[in-house]
Amino acid sequence: MKAEWIWYPGDMETRWINNFNARRYERDVFIPPLWQAYGIFPVIKFAKKFVLCEDDDLTILSDGKCNVELDGAGKYVYGFNGTLHLTAGEHTLSVLVQGENGRVPCIFVRGKEICSDGTWYCSCQDGTFILAEADGFSDPEISPNDYRLPVRSVLPVSVRSVKNASLYDFGDEMLAYVEFCGCSNGGRLHLYYGESEREALDFQHCELTDTLECKGGTICTAIPKAMRWLSVKAEDGATYESIRALVEYSPRLFEPKFDSKDSQLKNIWDVALHTIDLTTREFFMDGIKRDRWVWAGDSVQSVLLNAYSFDDRAAARRTLTGLAGKPPVRRHINTIVDYTLFWLIGVKLYYDHSQDTAYVRQIFPQMREIVQFVLSRTDTDGNMQFKPDDWIFIDWADGLPKDADGYSYLQILLFKALSCAALCAKMAEDTESAAAWEAEASKVLKALRRDYWMQDKKCFAYARKDGAFYGPVCRQPNIMAVLCGAADEKQMAEIAENQYLWKNSPSIKTPYMQFYELSALCEMGRKKEVLCRIREYFGGMLDLGAQTFWEYYDPTEKGDEHLSMYGRKYGKSMCHAWGGAPVYLLAKYFIGIRPGKEGSGFIIQPETNLMPDYKAELPLPQGKLRIECSEGKISVLADVPGTLVIEDRQIQIQPNVLLLVQSEKEK
Amino acid sequence: MKAEWIWYPGDMETRWINNFNARRYERDVFIPPLWQAYGIFPVIKFAKKFVLCEDDDLTILSDGKCNVELDGAGKYVYGFNGTLHLTAGEHTLSVLVQGENGRVPCIFVRGKEICSDGTWYCSCQDGTFILAEADGFSDPEISPNDYRLPVRSVLPVSVRSVKNASLYDFGDEMLAYVEFCGCSNGGRLHLYYGESEREALDFQHCELTDTLECKGGTICTAIPKAMRWLSVKAEDGATYESIRALVEYSPRLFEPKFDSKDSQLKNIWDVALHTIDLTTREFFMDGIKRDRWVWAGDSVQSVLLNAYSFDDRAAARRTLTGLAGKPPVRRHINTIVDYTLFWLIGVKLYYDHSQDTAYVRQIFPQMREIVQFVLSRTDTDGNMQFKPDDWIFIDWADGLPKDADGYSYLQILLFKALSCAALCAKMAEDTESAAAWEAEASKVLKALRRDYWMQDKKCFAYARKDGAFYGPVCRQPNIMAVLCGAADEKQMAEIAENQYLWKNSPSIKTPYMQFYELSALCEMGRKKEVLCRIREYFGGMLDLGAQTFWEYYDPTEKGDEHLSMYGRKYGKSMCHAWGGAPVYLLAKYFIGIRPGKEGSGFIIQPETNLMPDYKAELPLPQGKLRIECSEGKISVLADVPGTLVIEDRQIQIQPNVLLLVQSEKEK
Repeated sequence: MKAEWIWYPGDMETRWINNFNARRYERDVFIPPLWQAYGIFPVIKFAKKFVLCEDDDLTILSDGKCNVELDGAGKYVYGFNGTLHLTAGEHTLSVLVQGENGRVPCIFVRGKEICSDGTWYCSCQDGTFILAEADGFSDPEISPNDYRLPVRSVLPVSVRSVKNASLYDFGDEMLAYVEFCGCSNGGRLHLYYGESEREALDFQHCELTDTLECKGGTICTAIPKAMRWLSVKAEDGATYESIRALVEYSPRLFEPKFDSKDSQLKNIWDVALHTIDLTTREFFMDGIKRDRWVWAGDSVQSVLLNAYSFDDRAAARRTLTGLAGKPPVRRHINTIVDYTLFWLIGVKLYYDHSQDTAYVRQIFPQMREIVQFVLSRTDTDGNMQFKPDDWIFIDWADGLPKDADGYSYLQILLFKALSCAALCAKMAEDTESAAAWEAEASKVLKALRRDYWMQDKKCFAYARKDGAFYGPVCRQPNIMAVLCGAADEKQMAEIAENQYLWKNSPSIKTPYMQFYELSALCEMGRKKEVLCRIREYFGGMLDLGAQTFWEYYDPTEKGDEHLSMYGRKYGKSMCHAWGGAPVYLLAKYFIGIRPGKEGSGFIIQPETNLMPDYKAELPLPQGKLRIECSEGKISVLADVPGTLVIEDRQIQIQPNVLLLVQSEKEK
Repeated sequence: MKAEWIWYPGDMETRWINNFNARRYERDVFIPPLWQAYGIFPVIKFAKKFVLCEDDDLTILSDGKCNVELDGAGKYVYGFNGTLHLTAGEHTLSVLVQGENGRVPCIFVRGKEICSDGTWYCSCQDGTFILAEADGFSDPEISPNDYRLPVRSVLPVSVRSVKNASLYDFGDEMLAYVEFCGCSNGGRLHLYYGESEREALDFQHCELTDTLECKGGTICTAIPKAMRWLSVKAEDGATYESIRALVEYSPRLFEPKFDSKDSQLKNIWDVALHTIDLTTREFFMDGIKRDRWVWAGDSVQSVLLNAYSFDDRAAARRTLTGLAGKPPVRRHINTIVDYTLFWLIGVKLYYDHSQDTAYVRQIFPQMREIVQFVLSRTDTDGNMQFKPDDWIFIDWADGLPKDADGYSYLQILLFKALSCAALCAKMAEDTESAAAWEAEASKVLKALRRDYWMQDKKCFAYARKDGAFYGPVCRQPNIMAVLCGAADEKQMAEIAENQYLWKNSPSIKTPYMQFYELSALCEMGRKKEVLCRIREYFGGMLDLGAQTFWEYYDPTEKGDEHLSMYGRKYGKSMCHAWGGAPVYLLAKYFIGIRPGKEGSGFIIQPETNLMPDYKAELPLPQGKLRIECSEGKISVLADVPGTLVIEDRQIQIQPNVLLLVQSEKEK
């Protein structure tokens, strides 16, 4: 029994994500997100009924002003000083807390037989009590309101004087505070951050800057910012004795490993993992330089990347919860239609890789609000309807019209989202919603296969307008149809064999959609091609010196073109979550790890022909796995039961028993 | 043109009311309300489009971190330092603010031609822009987040030593901080507050206490508390040189006056006004000692009391807005079914006495949420349905069963509430809701007259259960039927003539329901009786030394019984808003002031026979009025047009022209 701080579900995440999303700056301009931020409930009642075998003295801490009621409404404990003496026997205890200064009401209770944890109930006094939330905050001295990531000190590896400034190289991409010791009393320091040396030296155009007033002693920047290089320009006689970076990092419960004789593949995996590491913080963020916000579409990819790397489930839950917002739902998540749908799918994906039913139950009330919002935006055929402020993203790609009446891509996501939500509803024991949403999903699927399938072109149309097919023949909806099972068997085969689609239609330009395209190619059995593309695309960035993978990479661009985006010289994020795709693709489709159905253990189906010899340690929904493939010999060690599928064989994996298997195929 | 701080409608009131309701203590126990408190939106965008005739430098202040966009999305002003230079011509300006530490995002903009005010738009980024709210905060130095009432210093009028303590008498009921100057460095002071001397001397049972640590210099209590008497007990050698009360008061824009040759009537009015004054602060509160919360049922009476006294419209608006909460509406206001209905009626009553259409439009979106919530709790006949957590208050009265299926009192309020809401919907130009709610009101009225009218007893039943009349014959529903026009003409006459009801059914015991009973008696023409009851009931409290009117007064109680309530020796609030009833009754039914229909001016119909000679100065919806009645001569001076109705005559009142009329009746 471990005492933890507890709070009203979702409220701490709301506070955290509001603070997290508020760290975007473009030079001196503060830029909070363009979507709605939510408030928290300022007054929460926590309650628990229990039986003590013997007398006890409970420690009760609250973040916020509180009162304590013991054994009945209105039975206040007068003169309460933080410790409550209880006699053996049955008790009901409630603590009513009002948060101060925007802090989330939360409590920490510790006794010999009873502790605050996720079995307590809480209410915002709306007439219902629900299970309180805990997230592992067990230090009574540190309120989760003050949760922040730890830092470690990093010194620059080199410094030189350029353009009247000191240019520091910290050796690696990082998100860091900058601290100066032994400062002069007077003057100021201008800081110019760079993900590239060029950016740090372009004082007029670099994306991130800071100005610090020297007041003697030690001074530090207020917000950690992305950099490897940093120019420091002193003004009005400012001096300092030393500089260091305080690198913000997220401690890991699991350290994934991958090693390969093939050094390119090994390097790609390492850099992808580093990219995932830097973008997996309190929440999954898109890029550490820009825009540092939490986006549902990006985050769902992070949920998958995370499941095959650090397995930071708290970060995944926080991200999904923080994105979910609070009722009433009045606009799409991140204002993007597809992102709302991805969020619904994301909850199910998180569940698949964690089997965390408790979380599904916790988030389900808001999931229901979101589904109801989505359904309120569909017509009788299940076609999504749009409002002027809805952002239909799909993909950054030239020539995709955004003025259709209906989009097959969105209908495919809608089908998948409703199916996922129905499964979650079952877990949350809302059978009525489950049945309704399943029926709705079937309706959407039926209309989709009927209305968006171009029989002559053997693929799904991009969109429909005024009752007719509309837009170019393009890959995005067909990729998604393969991944979501939206096409029927015949359609699926026709898509897979559609030479025009995969050879001649416009190629995918974003790593975001490449994540899905490469996945879809794997699903269609084209793994060899995928491995080549991983080497070409991600290997291409490595060849240009990337230490983390980028938001965007076009091999035809040259020199500084790789740094620019959105019309800004250094607008491109050089460390972007979706750059982590190789970690997911290698683990899921080549090492071949998949979660099994609930309770049935994981499945591993390694690709024995294509992959060079490798060793890996990766997480599983209920444990972890070590695998080594060397010259056709496969050894697997897991701490939970599973199934090894190799060629036509299915071999049971016993927990903590090393399994050695020889592939029957020639390499 | 006056620059004011502006914010997202309702959010500042939400912050204020959360702080206001958090000032209830029972001795050392902090007691926030038992109903839901709402959060605020942490990020708000403010926007305005305008044309400047000449160049200008705008001052832009924000409470919270902000960015400024000029003339287009994403066109951030870099290096913004609080002043924005604008060239002549058309501009769009937006300021996006993220509040910090729970503070409400708000801005203050001042230029030569453009200022922040209620014509700006704002958005919580939910896809819609609505008019921003301003409430007269025009000092750029003081953010409305820091709004607090001013204080004035009051010294004790006497002190004596009793029971090892110093007993101070501050001469009058007040809500005050207590400040000690010249304190010892060490020891502590225990404070025992009393609305009565007896309470201040009963250290074990007085309702309000405080403990202050002496640290030298000046120390002060954290929260103003209700008192006239105060015992101070020094411990561990604590000393101080002087003590004073810092009395929190609400500055008034209008000072009502009433004078009469009849000193009892004059005293009753004075003490009622003092009671209103003390309970009209940032919000209308019920009582200054207990429970210091804002209740819709109490507040609607305060809306009426206020309209005939200080005319503090900002307090009325703040109260209605603070009570309204935010969507989604999941429980009745204050958890009380009748109070939700009273809130809907209260908005209309506020409008009647202010003709403040702008406010009705501002509050309307939440009013619609509340009506929809109410209608979701009615059956097809319009009968209200209840959930286990719903509090059906009606009145504190023995013998009223609370387990019926339907209550005529609530159905009457529902009819009135829907009628009022429909009128507000028209003002807000939501004709669809207006029509729907009118139809709903008619349905409720029809069922009410049919199902709750006891033909044999000539009055409305208390309630129905299992299809039959239920509960005692009682006054409450019949009082409300008279006031709300729920009875048809024949029923109304029968209620008025129902001797059993008005003579033999249980008498009303609460000042709360007396407010309505005396109003109903006036409506039925029984004003002489009402005047007697005012003298008996309120005069009775005066005879017992009341300086403010009480929460409850039973003339048959003796001595200290008058101090106790809720099973606590000093549980009774001795300064309770609804004690102000005489101010309303005298102004509305005897001086006879009523608001006219919109735009048609006020009506005054003074009671020439019953009232002793008097002079009064009172507010009107659009101005103010002076009236003097002396020996049958009536003089009226108003600054707006109106109509004097006297006997059978209707005489136009010209603005700022003294009107002199002789009553034709003998006194």
